[in-house]
Amino acid sequence: MQINRDNAEERDSCDPLGEFRDEFVLRPGLIYLDGNSLGPMHVSVRERMQACIEDEWANDLIASWNTAGWYDMPLRLGARIAPLIGADANDVVVTDSTSINLFKVLAAAIRLNPGRKVIVSERSNFPTDLYMVEGLSAFAGKGHELRLIDRPEDVAQAIDDSVAVVMLTHVNYRTGRVHDMADITRMAHEAGALVVWDLAHSTGALPVDLAGADADFAVGCTYKYLNGGPGAPAFVYVAPRLQTVAEQPLSGWFGHSRPFAFDPSFEPAKTIHRFLTGTPPVLSMTALEPALAIWDRVDIAAIRAKSVELCEYFIALVEQECAGFGLELASPRDSARRGSQVSFRHENAYAVMQALISRDVVGDFRAPDIMRFGFAPLYIGFVDVFDAVATLSDILQSNAWRDDRFQVRSAVT
Amino acid sequence: MQINRDNAEERDSCDPLGEFRDEFVLRPGLIYLDGNSLGPMHVSVRERMQACIEDEWANDLIASWNTAGWYDMPLRLGARIAPLIGADANDVVVTDSTSINLFKVLAAAIRLNPGRKVIVSERSNFPTDLYMVEGLSAFAGKGHELRLIDRPEDVAQAIDDSVAVVMLTHVNYRTGRVHDMADITRMAHEAGALVVWDLAHSTGALPVDLAGADADFAVGCTYKYLNGGPGAPAFVYVAPRLQTVAEQPLSGWFGHSRPFAFDPSFEPAKTIHRFLTGTPPVLSMTALEPALAIWDRVDIAAIRAKSVELCEYFIALVEQECAGFGLELASPRDSARRGSQVSFRHENAYAVMQALISRDVVGDFRAPDIMRFGFAPLYIGFVDVFDAVATLSDILQSNAWRDDRFQVRSAVT
Repeated sequence: MQINRDNAEERDSCDPLGEFRDEFVLRPGLIYLDGNSLGPMHVSVRERMQACIEDEWANDLIASWNTAGWYDMPLRLGARIAPLIGADANDVVVTDSTSINLFKVLAAAIRLNPGRKVIVSERSNFPTDLYMVEGLSAFAGKGHELRLIDRPEDVAQAIDDSVAVVMLTHVNYRTGRVHDMADITRMAHEAGALVVWDLAHSTGALPVDLAGADADFAVGCTYKYLNGGPGAPAFVYVAPRLQTVAEQPLSGWFGHSRPFAFDPSFEPAKTIHRFLTGTPPVLSMTALEPALAIWDRVDIAAIRAKSVELCEYFIALVEQECAGFGLELASPRDSARRGSQVSFRHENAYAVMQALISRDVVGDFRAPDIMRFGFAPLYIGFVDVFDAVATLSDILQSNAWRDDRFQVRSAVT
Repeated sequence: MQINRDNAEERDSCDPLGEFRDEFVLRPGLIYLDGNSLGPMHVSVRERMQACIEDEWANDLIASWNTAGWYDMPLRLGARIAPLIGADANDVVVTDSTSINLFKVLAAAIRLNPGRKVIVSERSNFPTDLYMVEGLSAFAGKGHELRLIDRPEDVAQAIDDSVAVVMLTHVNYRTGRVHDMADITRMAHEAGALVVWDLAHSTGALPVDLAGADADFAVGCTYKYLNGGPGAPAFVYVAPRLQTVAEQPLSGWFGHSRPFAFDPSFEPAKTIHRFLTGTPPVLSMTALEPALAIWDRVDIAAIRAKSVELCEYFIALVEQECAGFGLELASPRDSARRGSQVSFRHENAYAVMQALISRDVVGDFRAPDIMRFGFAPLYIGFVDVFDAVATLSDILQSNAWRDDRFQVRSAVT
């Protein structure tokens, strides 16, 4: 592969996804490789939010629960996400945060498998997933224990007939390593365990086939590759075969079979609605809807193909242009095992990332030593990758990252 | 009391809260008596949301967690609510929905009182509160039972030494009846029980003194009298003496003592932060902030005084103008025992309310036979009350409510 900027420009010029870039609001000069943390804003969000605030809230007020379809939003947004994760429209709802949705499905899963006490996960899983298991286990008080594997390839040997639930994040938040969803789900089922998948770093980044894998439960995030806005509500998937039997303890009125009957006894909806709890944050839900509309026009297979190319190009360029500066690839080299991000370890990862950000190349730092770069094919091109690596190379060669201002940690890093 | 429109106009003209009405976006002709369900929009929300969307999200992207203070929002907004409920700034956070926050505090409460199994509440409580107890009890599996009183005055006799928690909504959502917070909290404590108050229909409507009553926990809603916008996130109060010992099972990363250390083990914050869970819905939180700013300029005692006058005026007018049409006051007649709403029973409550709404007098219906009218003193005046009753009287006298179109129930009623 010829590595130069002309080549990158040529690749951008024949990129079938190139047309979508201008639909996102990104200021000139910014190379935003942090869409895996917070996606940028789709231009259509402006008008939609304006309409929600002025027409729906200010003008129509309470009537908008019916007339503007606020009440149907959890299912309507879920239906838009469904094709991206291999689910049917009625099997996904958008509601609450990923952490809370994880609690719901974990609680449902351990009740469906009452004789077993082990929950398998990874020590390197996103911490909140592990925290939710801790909280759940302590509260349930039935001796559930977390069995954490240290290497992703050790999942198989951790699954035995004591395992109630296997809970894994499909794409690791730090390394981008991908688990084999179909294979692990099959192994877990053969051992009598249920499987919960966290799709935070998968949805909108690569094809996912929950139904094809016969997965039991999944949760995921909408503010990363789905560009739903800061803290946009998360989603829950429940396999149709489980929807009438899975019981979750956060049984609020939106999960009732007849929420407006105001019955003092809870009767769960016989649908995915039983995974809803309280009143949804309508403004945050509303910003997500136009952001999801783009997926009517975009093939997730094309996203994946370009994502692989961007990541391979980035790795090749970094290893060529930044050799000898102590960078070590922390992501799998094999594209088939890697999501839409590339992570490098560096002794001074924090300062180097701060220096990059100061020059408008935005990735992020993950403790203790990871620089993480996300490649969202909807708005990132090959020239972006080229320029990002040129900047990284210059920062390393000039020692610019040693500047005092890049050493100070902010509250949220 | 002389009851005529001139009198109402005079009362509006010398109303010290009259100046605030124009700060709310309410279309001409609308008499909005449903702010106890969804408050209207404060004019400052427009500009603030525009800035959040354009400057914070679209332009500054991920940096806004620090630079725009997104990360501090749960505590910052909680501090603004604190003076309205008799709490210190560090004892309240805004997060999640009321239902979910109720689960957190109930779970914490039953763990603090492990030898007892009874949770006292009211059959007429807002149903989601009871549903959350059901979900919690079933999941905990320790035999917790709900002891429901049928009459609000029966709280005292329901409290004995088997009671772990007394969970009450301060102002009843249907009747507006107010519980004596200080008295009930004292009785519960004397019996060794903890108390959880739901302030959904209290906050911003009447003074609340949680610290003065020595309450243990409280939750509340921000989209009613606080005008935070549809589905705006709720709040949680935890007494300072309980903050380091209360443990709640929804232990997500925002509740960790060091969320960005990405430690695989959960260590709860030693503050109210431990009642946070996942990433907050920033856009919905943002709309709430300017809505709360008005309380810097408004005295809750003045709100209460006007609220009592508005409600008394409404009751007197209805009983004078609509006598003989089968309306029965469902709220306490004694203002000291009534929140900022008035409810009337009527055999055809649904149709009469629909007819009122069709003529721009907006209250709401609560099954099976309640017409509910909320009086928010920030934007409702005496002429509004007069005109609302005139419309109601006309609808009853003309039988306009018998029209077919007022009989059909919508999905969300």
